[in-house]
Amino acid sequence: MIRFYNGRTLRFGGGMRVTEDEVWTDGGVISYVGQTPETLPAFEREIDLKGDLLLPGFKDAHTHTAMTFLRSYADDMPLQDWLYKQVFPNEAKLTPEMVYTFTRLGIMEYLSSGITASFDMYVKNDAYAAANIDSGFRTVICSGLNNFDADPENIEREYLKFNSLHELVSYRLGIHAEYTTCMERMRYAAELSHKYKAPSYTHLCETKAEVEGCIERYGMTPPQLLDSIGFFDYGGGGFHCVWMSEEDIDLFARKKLWAVTNPCSNLKLASGVAPLDRLARAGVPLAIGTDGAASNNALDFFREMYLASTLQKVTQEDAAAGGADRVLEMACVGGARAIGLDDCDDIAAGKRADLIVLNLRRPNMQPLHNIPRNIVYAGSKENVRLTMVNGRVLYENGEFFIGEEPEKIYEKANAEIKRCIR
Amino acid sequence: MIRFYNGRTLRFGGGMRVTEDEVWTDGGVISYVGQTPETLPAFEREIDLKGDLLLPGFKDAHTHTAMTFLRSYADDMPLQDWLYKQVFPNEAKLTPEMVYTFTRLGIMEYLSSGITASFDMYVKNDAYAAANIDSGFRTVICSGLNNFDADPENIEREYLKFNSLHELVSYRLGIHAEYTTCMERMRYAAELSHKYKAPSYTHLCETKAEVEGCIERYGMTPPQLLDSIGFFDYGGGGFHCVWMSEEDIDLFARKKLWAVTNPCSNLKLASGVAPLDRLARAGVPLAIGTDGAASNNALDFFREMYLASTLQKVTQEDAAAGGADRVLEMACVGGARAIGLDDCDDIAAGKRADLIVLNLRRPNMQPLHNIPRNIVYAGSKENVRLTMVNGRVLYENGEFFIGEEPEKIYEKANAEIKRCIR
Repeated sequence: MIRFYNGRTLRFGGGMRVTEDEVWTDGGVISYVGQTPETLPAFEREIDLKGDLLLPGFKDAHTHTAMTFLRSYADDMPLQDWLYKQVFPNEAKLTPEMVYTFTRLGIMEYLSSGITASFDMYVKNDAYAAANIDSGFRTVICSGLNNFDADPENIEREYLKFNSLHELVSYRLGIHAEYTTCMERMRYAAELSHKYKAPSYTHLCETKAEVEGCIERYGMTPPQLLDSIGFFDYGGGGFHCVWMSEEDIDLFARKKLWAVTNPCSNLKLASGVAPLDRLARAGVPLAIGTDGAASNNALDFFREMYLASTLQKVTQEDAAAGGADRVLEMACVGGARAIGLDDCDDIAAGKRADLIVLNLRRPNMQPLHNIPRNIVYAGSKENVRLTMVNGRVLYENGEFFIGEEPEKIYEKANAEIKRCIR
Repeated sequence: MIRFYNGRTLRFGGGMRVTEDEVWTDGGVISYVGQTPETLPAFEREIDLKGDLLLPGFKDAHTHTAMTFLRSYADDMPLQDWLYKQVFPNEAKLTPEMVYTFTRLGIMEYLSSGITASFDMYVKNDAYAAANIDSGFRTVICSGLNNFDADPENIEREYLKFNSLHELVSYRLGIHAEYTTCMERMRYAAELSHKYKAPSYTHLCETKAEVEGCIERYGMTPPQLLDSIGFFDYGGGGFHCVWMSEEDIDLFARKKLWAVTNPCSNLKLASGVAPLDRLARAGVPLAIGTDGAASNNALDFFREMYLASTLQKVTQEDAAAGGADRVLEMACVGGARAIGLDDCDDIAAGKRADLIVLNLRRPNMQPLHNIPRNIVYAGSKENVRLTMVNGRVLYENGEFFIGEEPEKIYEKANAEIKRCIR
């Protein structure tokens, strides 16, 4: 058992609040949250929080982890050139070893940013899953079925395999996007969703051109098209959700589909700003993702949270828009529920021990007028003191405990790039 | 003498480039930049960079340092309420002791973000200057003349006093803004600028309402009005520069006035996005500022740099806009020249030893495709390994060396707030 004491706890159940409870973990589970009892059991470790804040980890609800291999490789160029001249040709060179190494690198970045779980859509999922399991990191894999897949039925085999492989790994159904997937394959994905009564996810309404193209091809927006073939009958959601019509928003609200926003990626690729306030008012559940490091270029949840709030203010010309509390709830709670990790969404007995400690004794967290706002509006990776996944400390005081030395990972990453990319 | 070796250096003179030079400092000055010579002198300290990057510090070219006292105090509210119900009434309670303490807090935040100099406009400049001198930090004070000043001529006395007080402190002339300063006082500031042949600065074109109000009052935009009374005859510049007309841009280009952008503050207060690409194309020199922590809410130059680039992309719907290299030059070189610290703008023998070391051995800086882009698009305060001002290491590996313990500063800050604000 591990004990966290002498600090603060940010809890969500029953309304977001900061308490002075202590927290114990036992194996992969939170076993106690409350005041210090008169007699204490024996602990394997006691962590003095020194006033710091313990809270549920951030969930990265849309990412492509191994795309760290293209960070800062192709920037400042038009979207189509970026995708077709840089991303796709280089992705074709990816080996399982590269996916393993660059996933390790991405996991390190998650940990240093307080992220305790990812929702990942990419390639070579065996290598990807192994990198997560070897690191002790929690991930949900999302199938990204598209026209380039040689064997579309592989997603059913993967669904069965990865949902029974390891407690840290699970798998959800999905397609890459309408514009990369033919109707036959979209229907196949929708049928699988019905067969397993499972939610479905996809990139959706990321760019204006994507929506216009879909209307031209099918006479419907991507959400309406996918809904018309039963893709969303068991829930799920969309990544990006920038260019949503009122009807799309109504559909998402009615079916309780998750809108996962990726503000940094949408800025950097010039896609636009998702209408989060409108989505929230309509009752659409919200979560946040980083997208991949090729389009962001960091996996930094503090930056995402800051922009999930402030971009609402500037686009609506209203400084009162995009409140901080909702953003923090999207990061910690919404993300967990969006990807089916409902037991990772709070600091409470019985929940999974996926939690982080933020150092409040840094200048950007002072004075202590309002801790949640300090996190959303002033927080940074320098504040991440500890990241625990499934009861194991994987990151603490700048050091990683993931079974491999950072320098080795960097060395392999740069060597693989020299060999394959340049 | 201090020696930095076994790493990389980012240099700007003769074109931005990453070299493998080593760097020596002697007192407050850079004494050598080049390859390792055959014989080495005696050093008081030798710092193994381990491959990390040494570069000129970032210059925060517009800020109100002591406004850390209102961080996260008044957020998510309309601009006018924020200003008139929260900021002004609480500023009236500020004592010199509070300005000293909250300036110390802000300086810590600068150091942790790789900022080596600030251009500050605020109140109680004696206490402000003392906090900088006591911390070893470099600052340029800007007078913020407005209608609330009991004694407008004080800015001339301050001009003379603070320009001969200490090598770390200097002083520039300026007014707060057109909308807070009557014509008589604006003329007085312009006359002082002529008397001392000194540049003048002001908040300018921050909000649409400000520009519309100025046109209503004077029939001219703020830049044109100020230029018409000779305010800019010896150079200077404007803070924010969001709502600039083509004529305003031409004026700034013709007179080589500095446009200092504050992207985070402009988002959070819903003011807009400065047209940096248009300004740059017209030949307007550019720099970056954080603004105060009450409106940002952090003094984090990585966030500013990221947005100085990516907001250009999204507002122009062009992923190729707002290139990273220019942003890095604005942060390191532009900022220095904008505020008259021309000898703090590069890593070269004879320049002031105001420099930083960025840790490249963190996951967000890997792989090493392109180091400048890694900094602008993926950098974070976790990368700041060391900050040196005037030859003294003030921050290293998360620790501050500013003559007072952080915990003491936090304690005083929270106590003063309890006493005065709440």
